[in-house]
Amino acid sequence: MTRNDARTLEELKAALPAEVLTTNPDTMEAYRRDRANDPNPGMPLVVVRPTTTEQVQTVVRIAAANGTPIVPRGAGSSLSGGSTAVDGAITLSVDRMNTITVDTSTRTLTTGPGAINAEVKAAAAEHGLWYPPDPASFEFCSIGGNIATNAGGLCCVKYGVTTDYVLGMTVVLADGRAIRLGGPKLKDVAGLSLTKLFVGSEGTLGIITEVTLRLVPAQRQPTTLVATFPTLEAATNTVIDVSRTMRPSMAEFMDRTTINAVEDETRMGLDREAAAMLIFQSDEAGDHAQTEILEIERLCHHHGATECYATADPDEGAAFIQARRMAIPAVEKTGAILLEDVGVPVPRLGDLVSGIAAIARKHEVSIPVLAHAGDGNTHPLVVFDPTDEAMKDRAERAYGEIIDLAISLDGTITGEHGIGRMKRPWLVDQLGEDVMELNQRIKDALDPQGILNPGSVFAMRPETQVHVVAGGQQ
Amino acid sequence: MTRNDARTLEELKAALPAEVLTTNPDTMEAYRRDRANDPNPGMPLVVVRPTTTEQVQTVVRIAAANGTPIVPRGAGSSLSGGSTAVDGAITLSVDRMNTITVDTSTRTLTTGPGAINAEVKAAAAEHGLWYPPDPASFEFCSIGGNIATNAGGLCCVKYGVTTDYVLGMTVVLADGRAIRLGGPKLKDVAGLSLTKLFVGSEGTLGIITEVTLRLVPAQRQPTTLVATFPTLEAATNTVIDVSRTMRPSMAEFMDRTTINAVEDETRMGLDREAAAMLIFQSDEAGDHAQTEILEIERLCHHHGATECYATADPDEGAAFIQARRMAIPAVEKTGAILLEDVGVPVPRLGDLVSGIAAIARKHEVSIPVLAHAGDGNTHPLVVFDPTDEAMKDRAERAYGEIIDLAISLDGTITGEHGIGRMKRPWLVDQLGEDVMELNQRIKDALDPQGILNPGSVFAMRPETQVHVVAGGQQ
Repeated sequence: MTRNDARTLEELKAALPAEVLTTNPDTMEAYRRDRANDPNPGMPLVVVRPTTTEQVQTVVRIAAANGTPIVPRGAGSSLSGGSTAVDGAITLSVDRMNTITVDTSTRTLTTGPGAINAEVKAAAAEHGLWYPPDPASFEFCSIGGNIATNAGGLCCVKYGVTTDYVLGMTVVLADGRAIRLGGPKLKDVAGLSLTKLFVGSEGTLGIITEVTLRLVPAQRQPTTLVATFPTLEAATNTVIDVSRTMRPSMAEFMDRTTINAVEDETRMGLDREAAAMLIFQSDEAGDHAQTEILEIERLCHHHGATECYATADPDEGAAFIQARRMAIPAVEKTGAILLEDVGVPVPRLGDLVSGIAAIARKHEVSIPVLAHAGDGNTHPLVVFDPTDEAMKDRAERAYGEIIDLAISLDGTITGEHGIGRMKRPWLVDQLGEDVMELNQRIKDALDPQGILNPGSVFAMRPETQVHVVAGGQQ
Repeated sequence: MTRNDARTLEELKAALPAEVLTTNPDTMEAYRRDRANDPNPGMPLVVVRPTTTEQVQTVVRIAAANGTPIVPRGAGSSLSGGSTAVDGAITLSVDRMNTITVDTSTRTLTTGPGAINAEVKAAAAEHGLWYPPDPASFEFCSIGGNIATNAGGLCCVKYGVTTDYVLGMTVVLADGRAIRLGGPKLKDVAGLSLTKLFVGSEGTLGIITEVTLRLVPAQRQPTTLVATFPTLEAATNTVIDVSRTMRPSMAEFMDRTTINAVEDETRMGLDREAAAMLIFQSDEAGDHAQTEILEIERLCHHHGATECYATADPDEGAAFIQARRMAIPAVEKTGAILLEDVGVPVPRLGDLVSGIAAIARKHEVSIPVLAHAGDGNTHPLVVFDPTDEAMKDRAERAYGEIIDLAISLDGTITGEHGIGRMKRPWLVDQLGEDVMELNQRIKDALDPQGILNPGSVFAMRPETQVHVVAGGQQ
C-alpha cells in the first residue's frame, strides 16, 4: 500500500457533507496541537468532524483504501501529545459526537465520545447519579479522550479509573467496519475482554464512536482534612500509613513550590513554609466520615504534621479541592512546563519525591510536585524559561531522568495521561522488549496498515510517513 | 507444523523432575473432567504439575516445538468445560503453584494461580484485609481459574468482578517466553491494557503463573434482609427498583423449586409456597446499613412481598447466605443438571425469568433458577434424568433455547463461568461475525499455532487435533 492522500481528499469531499470537512489552514491551525504543546506539530491533510458512526466509517474506509493515516481527537486536552496532528494525516475530531442519554433503569449513560467529562457528570447528576472518574481537567476534557487514555483523577483512590466504568462501546475498526462491544450488562465474560482492550489504547486500535458507562448513586458530601508537614518524608509516610488500612475518597499531595504557586493565585492562606500539604476526603456515611478523618488526622500528627484542619462544610472542602485543581495552571504562570505523570507503588512515594528533588537540584530547574498520593501517581512539573535554550535542555534532561527514576522504582512512566507521542521513546524501557513486542503484535493484528494514530504509543512506520512528492499533497 | 507428541513426551520426561509429570492412566483419570462433567472428555498425553514459572516455560517450549496442544487447569471447577482434557494434549495443572504472600504496605497479595480463592481470602483476612470476588465455589475454585474466566460471585453487585482486583501477572506466552505485566501499582496506563486482556481469556492466550491482586480493608458486618414473593414478577420488579437507586452488597434470587431443594437439605424453615425469595445485604457503616435495608424492605412490601425478615446478627445472616451457596448442590440431588449462566441488563430480568419458565413448560423439564439478581446474572439449572434419553434431549434443547432467549434480550450467554467448550457453538450468536473475527485475530496474534486450550472459546483447528496414526501416541 502506497499513500495516495490526494485521492483520499477527493473521496472525502465527495462522500461527506461539506460542513463535516475543512482544509482551511486557519481553521486547521486549531487542530494541530493539544495540551502537550508540541513545538513542531504536523499539518493535517484535512480536518473532519463527523457527527455519526457511519461518517466515521466513511472516513476510515477511504483512509484505509488510500493508506492515509488518521489522528483521532477528542477535546484536544491530551497532555502526552496523543492528538497532535501528523503531517498529511486526517485529523478526525469527534467533538460533535456528544449526545448524552441516561437510562435510569439500567443505571447507565450512553454518549458520543465528544461529550465533555463535566457534561457526563452533570447528565448523571440530574438523575441523582454519579460518574466518578474526575481528571483535574474534567471541565474541558472529552469522555472519548478519557477512555482513550484510561484517565484517572482525584476520586480514583477509592472509586477506580475510567476502565472500571466502561460497560460497552461502538468502535470503528481500521478497515471501516463498526462493531458493538458489551452494553448495559454488569457481568459479561463471553469472548475476550475487548472492551477493556480498547480502553487505554489511545486511538491506535480503533475509533470509539459511542460508549455506555456505568453510573453509581450520588456521592455523599465528603468531610475534608488539610494537613501541612515540615518535611516531604513526613507527608509521604503519612500517605503510606493511611493506605495500609483506610480508603479515603481523596488523598492529594502538593509540595512547597506548588503550595506557593496556588497561594499566589488564591490568597486563601495556605502555609507557604510547609514542605508539603495533604488533602484527604472521606465520604463514608454519617458520623463515619468524621471517624475516618479523625483517624487520618491522628496519623498526620503521628508523622509530625504542623497543622491539621478538618471541615465538614461542603463549600470549604470544595475550596481546597479547587486549589488543588488549579495547581497546574498556577505553576504554568511561573514558566513553561514539562508535565510528568509518573507513578510508583505507594510505599515508594517518598523515594520518588525525594529523588525528584535531587534531580531538580542537579539540573538547576524548579520541579514542583503535586500528586494523587493515595494512588502513588505524581505530576512533577519541570519548569523552564522557554527563551533560555540551556535551561530548556536541562529541563528535558530532568524530564527523562524522572522517567528513569520511576522505572527504577518499579513504577510507571504514565499513571493516567497516556504514552501519546511524548513518552513513546521510553515505553520500551518500562515494558521491556517482550511486552513491547506483544503490544505491537496486537497493534498489527488490529491495524495492519498502521494508519490509526501513527507515532502515538507505537513508532510510526516508514510507509505511513508522508512522502513529500508521491502523495502530491505537500 | 505437524504434531509430534511422541517427541513431546520424551522431551518433557528428560527436562522435568519425575514427580512433575505423570502418564499413569489411573492418575490422569482425575484430570480428564471438570465440573461441567463432559460425558466424553479426552485422554491427556501427559499430565504435568509444574511448581515454577520456569517449569511452565519448559513445558510450553517443548509443546510449541512439537505442535502439541496444552490444556491449562486450575482446580478443575470449571462449569463450562474450560479445563476438560483434550485427546493427546498436555494437561498442565497449576495446582501446586499456590504460594501466597501478602504485602500490607502496597495492600496487595501475590500468589500462584493454584491457590484456592478461600485461601486467598484467608491470607488477606489475617492482615485485616479483604479480597472481595466470591464465586459460590470459593472454597474449592482456584484463583487462576477465577482470573481465566473473570469470575464473579455474590458480592460483585457492589464490589465488582475479578478483573477489578488484578493489578499484575506473570504470563507464559505460547512460545514459552515469560512476561511480567503490571505490578503493585494502582494506576498504570503505559501501553495496551494487556493485563485486562489476559483476564477472562480462559487459558487461550497464555498461561498465567503468578498474579498480584489488589486488596481492600475488611468488609463491615452486613445486615441481611430475606423477602419472599407471591410471583416471580414481584421479585424481579423489586430488584429492578432497588438497582435504580441503591448499592446493596448482595442481591440474590431463588425461585420456588430452588427454595424447596434448599429447604429439603437445611430444614431452616424457608417458605416452600413462595414463588421467589430475595436475599439482600447492606454493609454500609453503622446505622446506615439498617437505613438501606429498611428502604429495600419498603420496596419489597411495595411490590407485594409476603414476608420480610431483617437481621443484623452475623451468624443468622451467614446462614441465609450459606443456604444460597448450597442451592446448586441441593438441586443436583434432584437429578443431573445442565447449568446455565446467562445474564441480561437488569430491567430485562423479569422477561428472562418468565421466559425460562415458559421454556421449562414447553420441554417438560424442571428449570429452577437462582440468580445474582442485582447483576442480572442468572443460573437456570436444567434438571434431567440421565437415564432417560428423551428427557436428556429435551433438556439440551431447553439449554439452547435459554441461551437464545438471553441473546434476544441483549444479554450474555455467560456472566461469570466462561465460554469454555460447552458454550463455544453459541459464542458467535452473541458476538456476531465481526466481533468473533476480532477475537480470532487476537488469538492468532498471540497463539499462532493454536496450541493453548484448543477447542475452548475458539474452534479447534484441524492441525491441532490429534492424528491417530501420525503422532504414534494413540
